[in-house]
Amino acid sequence: MSPFAGSASRTERWRHLRLTLEEGVATVTLDRPAKLNALTFGAYADLRDLLAELSRERSVRALVLGGEGRGFCSGGDVDEIIGATLAMDTAELLDFNRMTGQVVRALRECPFPVVAAVHGVAAGAGAVLALAADFRIADPTARFAFLFTRVGLSGGDMGAAYLLPRVVGLGHATRLLMLGEPVRAAEAERIGLISELTEDGGAPARAATLARRLADGPALAHAQTKALLTAELDMPLAASVELDASTQALLMNGEDYAEFHAAFTAKRPPKWRGR
Amino acid sequence: MSPFAGSASRTERWRHLRLTLEEGVATVTLDRPAKLNALTFGAYADLRDLLAELSRERSVRALVLGGEGRGFCSGGDVDEIIGATLAMDTAELLDFNRMTGQVVRALRECPFPVVAAVHGVAAGAGAVLALAADFRIADPTARFAFLFTRVGLSGGDMGAAYLLPRVVGLGHATRLLMLGEPVRAAEAERIGLISELTEDGGAPARAATLARRLADGPALAHAQTKALLTAELDMPLAASVELDASTQALLMNGEDYAEFHAAFTAKRPPKWRGR
Amino acid sequence: MSPFAGSASRTERWRHLRLTLEEGVATVTLDRPAKLNALTFGAYADLRDLLAELSRERSVRALVLGGEGRGFCSGGDVDEIIGATLAMDTAELLDFNRMTGQVVRALRECPFPVVAAVHGVAAGAGAVLALAADFRIADPTARFAFLFTRVGLSGGDMGAAYLLPRVVGLGHATRLLMLGEPVRAAEAERIGLISELTEDGGAPARAATLARRLADGPALAHAQTKALLTAELDMPLAASVELDASTQALLMNGEDYAEFHAAFTAKRPPKWRGR
Repeated sequence: MSPFAGSASRTERWRHLRLTLEEGVATVTLDRPAKLNALTFGAYADLRDLLAELSRERSVRALVLGGEGRGFCSGGDVDEIIGATLAMDTAELLDFNRMTGQVVRALRECPFPVVAAVHGVAAGAGAVLALAADFRIADPTARFAFLFTRVGLSGGDMGAAYLLPRVVGLGHATRLLMLGEPVRAAEAERIGLISELTEDGGAPARAATLARRLADGPALAHAQTKALLTAELDMPLAASVELDASTQALLMNGEDYAEFHAAFTAKRPPKWRGR
Repeated sequence: MSPFAGSASRTERWRHLRLTLEEGVATVTLDRPAKLNALTFGAYADLRDLLAELSRERSVRALVLGGEGRGFCSGGDVDEIIGATLAMDTAELLDFNRMTGQVVRALRECPFPVVAAVHGVAAGAGAVLALAADFRIADPTARFAFLFTRVGLSGGDMGAAYLLPRVVGLGHATRLLMLGEPVRAAEAERIGLISELTEDGGAPARAATLARRLADGPALAHAQTKALLTAELDMPLAASVELDASTQALLMNGEDYAEFHAAFTAKRPPKWRGR
Repeated sequence: MSPFAGSASRTERWRHLRLTLEEGVATVTLDRPAKLNALTFGAYADLRDLLAELSRERSVRALVLGGEGRGFCSGGDVDEIIGATLAMDTAELLDFNRMTGQVVRALRECPFPVVAAVHGVAAGAGAVLALAADFRIADPTARFAFLFTRVGLSGGDMGAAYLLPRVVGLGHATRLLMLGEPVRAAEAERIGLISELTEDGGAPARAATLARRLADGPALAHAQTKALLTAELDMPLAASVELDASTQALLMNGEDYAEFHAAFTAKRPPKWRGR
């Protein structure tokens, strides 16, 4: 737990997603299978607030994001979101779109790695949630579709025009965001959109195993690796090298680094503390 | 047409390239087949001015760039450009190189997607013209060669050292720009340099089909997707997410977004207006 | 040789690496095969100082970096570096980590291409040295492992969190830096981590051939290509295009460009001078 707790209380019940916590691993499940886990205003708000809360508390060392039922997430709900936004004024539209962007920023900036377990459809905002994760573990049924232009919107939704070129290159990203065509698992693997392809139905288990390994390992080192990967996309080389130097100097004062050396010397496995 | 027409008149005849306009699709053909469409000073100037004119008028919703004859474009003409530049003073050299760079900027910044149809050779400046397009549709005869170092110049010509690493990664880009070796269609597909590989001779037709689809679709959404992809290569994550939010808020006030919802609700295909 | 020689003398003997110089090609060999070329404080310092010296003198037009014995480089020595850093205070730790970062900056900023010849293990700092080279020529025994988190440190060591996403994309980079798992030659080729895969044992010879070709070619053009690739990773498009324009204007005043035209006109191969 963070020593910097203030007055804010912990949310008792997340009404728009399912959360389990188990020894440093949070598992967040989009749980609206009858609608292919289509996102509602409440689901976006819960993701935003949950990630902020978990980041503040520092009790989580890895997070799995998955979807209940036949797919990962079909994106913003056509009725509850597209229909509703048509009645909104400019300030409300901006508020809504900022909220969805905050979810992506929270996924990139939270101090723990995020593992998306993707099966079936990951469409629209669902594709961007997966894209913003650190790892995408997918099974052969996975199908990514950045279909924003299909509804008359910009393909650059929730940071997708920033993130996707940095993951798969500008050429593939242009094609995917401009046309909104589905990317199946095999192509996703070929172009670097997924981290690992599992056997059919294997994504949740592999994602859980990876999150467990990350949480039980040198978690502060993992958190800093993520922070530097995120930050250095936006930094020049010289500054990045300086940031790396001060980060390593910091971690070389940490417990895990000393533990590695002690364990290596004693020819035993290290006992990571995550600090 | 743009409501912001000023005094500037439309160019009656482009003397250094072939232009056809058909219901929102511009087709620009490099048309000097006896010289493998080698670029002349006039061709660069026409590309620069044409793209500016089309961008200003807003009558074009997609553009196809192709080459007449045996190949796409063999790059700057050895006699008419290399020979001529040897007689230029410093200010003239800078003027020339700025003009070629302006063509690339215009390709990246024009408010419509650009589809390059590549067959045969795309060499030197021809390779960079293709690289600056949003889509590269190539057939199996396509051969890209960034051969600037072969003539004693920097591989970073016309933005190639900026664009190529963002398309294929720094490793491949270094190899291609430093050595100037040809990249055939199969490798181009493998490293993400092309968007689609067609059958022999199929690039122009596929490019025309794609441009037609883009022009007939939600063209403002496509234009904004391109604008965000271009801009966010140069922006940090937080600013990109904010730009995405305001862009989507804008488009959610647009006609095409409402039309999507109306069509979806009525179970009919949307009639896109491009606004 | 540079016309800008000052008082600094040339280092007579590099004690922590092996250096040969032959007509513009420097070959640097990590030469501690009994320890798989594990890096010591002295080796880092020698790499930093050697690269600065060679950059200042301008006598080198290409550099090969390889390892003696069974592998390329196993990274920082567990005893001599990890053990020693555990006894360091904060200022010393920062000094050490800045030094390693300076080696990477020197590899990226030196005015000649660097060709890493990789066989066997390239682990930890060894993997980053290879990553910072312009070319990675690897044989089938090559095995890259960014294993910093395995010792409790950040994967973003020596600029790796900056460089690796720009070479292989953010998805692969996250996986490699966060987990520290080995990347074998075939995967390295597939994701764009290596420039060329040779036959078994063929990396040093191919690297030497490439360096010779680079040194004997238009070396100033190569140097500027590298400088622009390095700089434009950190620059926006408009500024990159302007930098390209002034660089080409400069090189169009150079001897090699005129020589290309003369040779082309006379139908003979050019005699490059590297200026």
